Amino acid sequence: MSLAAAQEALARLVLDVPDFPKPGIVFKDLTPVLADHAAFTAVIDALADVGRDADGNAVVDKVVGMEARGFILAAPVALALGAGFVPVRKPGRLPRRTHQVAYDLEYGSDSLEAHRDAIAPGERVLIIDDVLATGGTAAATVRLIQACGGATHGFGVALELGFLDGRAALGDLAVTSLAIV
Amino acid sequence: MSLAAAQEALARLVLDVPDFPKPGIVFKDLTPVLADHAAFTAVIDALADVGRDADGNAVVDKVVGMEARGFILAAPVALALGAGFVPVRKPGRLPRRTHQVAYDLEYGSDSLEAHRDAIAPGERVLIIDDVLATGGTAAATVRLIQACGGATHGFGVALELGFLDGRAALGDLAVTSLAIV
Repeated sequence: MSLAAAQEALARLVLDVPDFPKPGIVFKDLTPVLADHAAFTAVIDALADVGRDADGNAVVDKVVGMEARGFILAAPVALALGAGFVPVRKPGRLPRRTHQVAYDLEYGSDSLEAHRDAIAPGERVLIIDDVLATGGTAAATVRLIQACGGATHGFGVALELGFLDGRAALGDLAVTSLAIV
Repeated sequence: MSLAAAQEALARLVLDVPDFPKPGIVFKDLTPVLADHAAFTAVIDALADVGRDADGNAVVDKVVGMEARGFILAAPVALALGAGFVPVRKPGRLPRRTHQVAYDLEYGSDSLEAHRDAIAPGERVLIIDDVLATGGTAAATVRLIQACGGATHGFGVALELGFLDGRAALGDLAVTSLAIV
C-alpha cells in the first residue's frame, strides 16, 4: 500500500524542468514531493521496504546516502529501519580517513568518499538515492562499501530514468525503483 | 527525556578533528552520531521538540535544511513534525525560480537559494542545522524565508560553538541548541 501511495505522489508532484542543468536535459524536480508531508512520508515508507524481508523485518545495518540530495531520503530511511546513516561525500568534505573511488562523467571524472570506519566488515548496507540516471554514483558507492568490507543489500531509488539504462552500470546489484520515467 | 538522551549521545560520540578543514580549526564530526541508530533518533527527537508547543503539538508548516549536512537532520525533523521539507541550496542547484541571498564569509562571500514557491506566505518555518558556528548561513536562511513571505518560528541546532557567538548574527531569532561546546 505504501508503494501505491508513493507512486501516486511521485506521478502527481514531480515536476519536469526543461533545459536544466543544461539545454536538452529535462530535470526531475522532487522538491514538491518533499514539501508535501504525506507524499514525503509515503516515499520514505516505500523506500524503507527495500531494506525489509518478506516478513517486514529490517535486514540492514547501515543506510548510505550520496551528497547532497541523497541525504534527504537516505537519512529518514535509516531511521525507519533502525539502521545507522552513512554519508558518501564529494572529496575533501569528510574530516577523517576515507576510502575514495573515482567514476567517469560525460566529460572527465569525479570522486566520492566514505569514512573508513563508516561501515564495519560484514555489515549489510542499503543504498538510497532520489534519481537513478547513468548509475555512476551508485556504482562508485558500491565500490566504497566493498572497500569498507560491507555487503551491499541493494539500491532503492525514488525515480529511475529508464532511457539511460543505469541498471546496466550496476551489474548484479538489486535495484528497486518506485517509479520508472 | 529526549533532550538528555541527545545530549548524552552528542557528548559521547561527536569527534573533535583537529586542523580540518584548515590548520587551527577543530572540526566537530557528527558522523558517529548518525551511524548510531539510537543516538541519531535521540537527536532528531530533541530537535523536533523545537517545533512543538508546551503541550507537545507541532506548530510549524515547513522545516528548512541547508545544504548539505543540514539535510541529514532537517528532513527527519520535518517528517517527525508532520511538516514539509524545504532545501536551501548553493547557487545554481535548484531548477526553478529562486530567491537568492548573499552572506559574508571570512574572505569573500557566498549565496544561498530557495525556490520561490517553497514556502507559502504566512507559513511557520523551523530552521534545522547540525552546527551553529558564525551564524552566517542561518541568517541568510532567515532572509530567504522572509523573501518567501514565511514566518520563522525558530532555529534548532545540534551543536553550538559558543565561542564564535553565532547568536549575535541572528538578532531576535529563537535559537535552541542541544549542546554548547
